[in-house]
Amino acid sequence: MDVFMQAAIDEAQLGREEGGIPIGSVLVHNNQIIGRGHNRRVQKGSAILHGEMDALENAGRQPAGVYREATLYTTLSPCPMCSGAILLYGIKRVIVGENQTFMGEEALLKKSGVDVQVLHNDNCVKMMRDFIQDSPELWNEDIGV
Amino acid sequence: MDVFMQAAIDEAQLGREEGGIPIGSVLVHNNQIIGRGHNRRVQKGSAILHGEMDALENAGRQPAGVYREATLYTTLSPCPMCSGAILLYGIKRVIVGENQTFMGEEALLKKSGVDVQVLHNDNCVKMMRDFIQDSPELWNEDIGV
Repeated sequence: MDVFMQAAIDEAQLGREEGGIPIGSVLVHNNQIIGRGHNRRVQKGSAILHGEMDALENAGRQPAGVYREATLYTTLSPCPMCSGAILLYGIKRVIVGENQTFMGEEALLKKSGVDVQVLHNDNCVKMMRDFIQDSPELWNEDIGV
Repeated sequence: MDVFMQAAIDEAQLGREEGGIPIGSVLVHNNQIIGRGHNRRVQKGSAILHGEMDALENAGRQPAGVYREATLYTTLSPCPMCSGAILLYGIKRVIVGENQTFMGEEALLKKSGVDVQVLHNDNCVKMMRDFIQDSPELWNEDIGV
């Protein structure tokens, strides 16, 4: 298991333990994690803190060059908002845990030149399947349905 | 002047007075402002709180139906991240103060069925022109350049 995807999964599990939505993300630059995050809809009453957004926020204000050289790891295929943030900052590489339970804007990212790799990770799929089964309304809220 | 665009401009000016980037936004539902915001990159050291994101965050967790019926007012054409948030939540109408100093993802929004109206407001243009002249590096940071 990739150590950075494991860190994203750890973030997702932490979010679940907090009663939140189990999606985690880390932003990696020069082989170091510079931002960790997980979905905080429940914990902070937030409409914008998806896992990827939380990782970007926790990385703080970074020079443009850092984003361009960074890789974003996320346990779930990134939604339109998070994909837009990836495009805004010119992040060139995104590693996705799974896209079976939710397919985000991978096509738009690829079309825009982002290298998107999907790991089809069973742990990531199981986390989301269990969560969606337990809390379908919360999940729908998170994806605007 | 539309009262809601004026509220967005007031938010932008408040941000400028705080030493921040002068972009403001309000989210309107049933002819009421349910969220106000302005760019908080400087004020909160934030990489994600563009004006539109701040307005969405300050509106709090809303049912899907509210977003679908809401109109987002923003002083500046929305960047990829903010456009992605608009698409995530299915906001169907966006009123833009100006798109001369920065052209966001209006084409993507329109293609996705969003009604985008640009007011070409002189106050909005002047706020951004003055700001970009004073703080070009801060502006570039905000748009990932």
